[in-house]
Amino acid sequence: MILTVTLNAALDVTYTVERVVTGESHRVRGVTQRAGGKGINVARVLRTLGSPVLATGLAGGDTGRSLLDELTSSGIPHEFVPIDGESRRTVAVVSANDGEATLFNEPGPEVSAAEWTAFVERFRSLASRASVVVLSGSMPPGVPEDGYAHLVSLVDGKTIVDASGPALRHAVAMRPNVIKPNARELAETTGHSELAPGISSLLRDGAQAVVASLGPEGLLAATEGASWRLAPPARLAGNPTGAGDACVAGLAAGLLAGADWPALLREAVALSAAAVVHPVAGGVDADTYAQLRATLPGARKAL
Amino acid sequence: MILTVTLNAALDVTYTVERVVTGESHRVRGVTQRAGGKGINVARVLRTLGSPVLATGLAGGDTGRSLLDELTSSGIPHEFVPIDGESRRTVAVVSANDGEATLFNEPGPEVSAAEWTAFVERFRSLASRASVVVLSGSMPPGVPEDGYAHLVSLVDGKTIVDASGPALRHAVAMRPNVIKPNARELAETTGHSELAPGISSLLRDGAQAVVASLGPEGLLAATEGASWRLAPPARLAGNPTGAGDACVAGLAAGLLAGADWPALLREAVALSAAAVVHPVAGGVDADTYAQLRATLPGARKAL
Repeated sequence: MILTVTLNAALDVTYTVERVVTGESHRVRGVTQRAGGKGINVARVLRTLGSPVLATGLAGGDTGRSLLDELTSSGIPHEFVPIDGESRRTVAVVSANDGEATLFNEPGPEVSAAEWTAFVERFRSLASRASVVVLSGSMPPGVPEDGYAHLVSLVDGKTIVDASGPALRHAVAMRPNVIKPNARELAETTGHSELAPGISSLLRDGAQAVVASLGPEGLLAATEGASWRLAPPARLAGNPTGAGDACVAGLAAGLLAGADWPALLREAVALSAAAVVHPVAGGVDADTYAQLRATLPGARKAL
Repeated sequence: MILTVTLNAALDVTYTVERVVTGESHRVRGVTQRAGGKGINVARVLRTLGSPVLATGLAGGDTGRSLLDELTSSGIPHEFVPIDGESRRTVAVVSANDGEATLFNEPGPEVSAAEWTAFVERFRSLASRASVVVLSGSMPPGVPEDGYAHLVSLVDGKTIVDASGPALRHAVAMRPNVIKPNARELAETTGHSELAPGISSLLRDGAQAVVASLGPEGLLAATEGASWRLAPPARLAGNPTGAGDACVAGLAAGLLAGADWPALLREAVALSAAAVVHPVAGGVDADTYAQLRATLPGARKAL
């Protein structure tokens, strides 16, 4: 089973309006809402793939209840730990005339020390049943900076960390199996603006593998002794939000299956590309996925 | 007791951001939310005045639960009828740099025929205990066009209707004690762009009194045989949203007390002005209210 952790889960609300004009009053034509946050997006993709998955994290208030209800109705198994604070919402206002999105992201709830301790205990128990654990996204206020590091240290199975900055730096020391920064996160976390020295420093600091996501240029995976590179065949039009989460879902499914690096990258690139084509984060376009999975070449050695 | 009816109750969410830029992602600095919709705003002002009030209406889903929770914690007595649909939210995004508000209003939930019947039964029972009934605001999809008319016909006490268009036209035939259109609503409902013929037609069609709210120019009240006019002493800076609801609260409190028209108008003008000075709809500035109540002249005969 793959366990996904979303400490800063959100209810993602999407409004469709004719056109956003600042200072005006808008009649919202359509409202959709679904559970979000990076770990939940990963769980949604894994659920689509038919992989055994369990979503955990922190959720509170009416917004927390709404997002857990949505997970239930989407058929995503979940065991979240309740908090007193109100889970955050994100509101994306999409203009019908040109598809432009204007986003409003609420701050995360404050997590108390007792709530964090309760989560760590629950995590310890859930992780003991998991073959792969995915830790994704930002941590809400109150969770210690080394929160992900602590969680990684409790896992016997494999771990993937998709984070950045201090949270990632701390986690790396606990030797996670895979970390997946994008180019910007890599630079922010390591201080190196170029890929190779940034990746090297993260491997040196403890990461067993670094998968750097490079947008249209695909993925670069590096371990202590080797590296591989794979890109989609063409630049794809669509919504890149969620492509990183689909990539992580592919890596998690591959780790669960014991795949080698070329196979891991093929799965991750096919899913990332299929997520770009799909309009909503957490979704993948089935046709694109099937086609790329069948036609992508093997990853080539890089660096 | 004054009963306020809010068929299309809302959870009013306010976001504070640095500055709204279309197509961008915004970090929300502050989130506040409270129950809203015109009848609830009226109830909130009445509660501030210390008048006995009960809020009813329709509420559903997690948003309905949130708004009822907020009424409870604000100390506003309420008895809402549950519906399957999700109550609407409004999102006001306020730019910290210039105070400009950009508004997004969700559509109301669909109300089934059975839900409307259940509401009418509950209303009949609540209205039998009320001396004054206030029907305010838009009706959600599924409520019949003559919904307010039907409710007015069930009331033994006094009725105030704050609506417009077909809902108001139907209600007028049931001889409500007071209707309170603003100048735009008066024109939309009657087809007359001038005040006097518009008011006359509503009186002729059945309204016992028409109180037209004219923004900074105050109020014009007309009955079959007489009319009165009263304006605040000076143009007030602030947020006019909610001024109409405060005006209705003043009229309701006055009707409950058996006040004459000059006293009704003084109360309504003082509260409207105090609502403009208050930053949030449903609130009134206590100093402005006390001062105007003491210093406003008597209403003068008009028309």
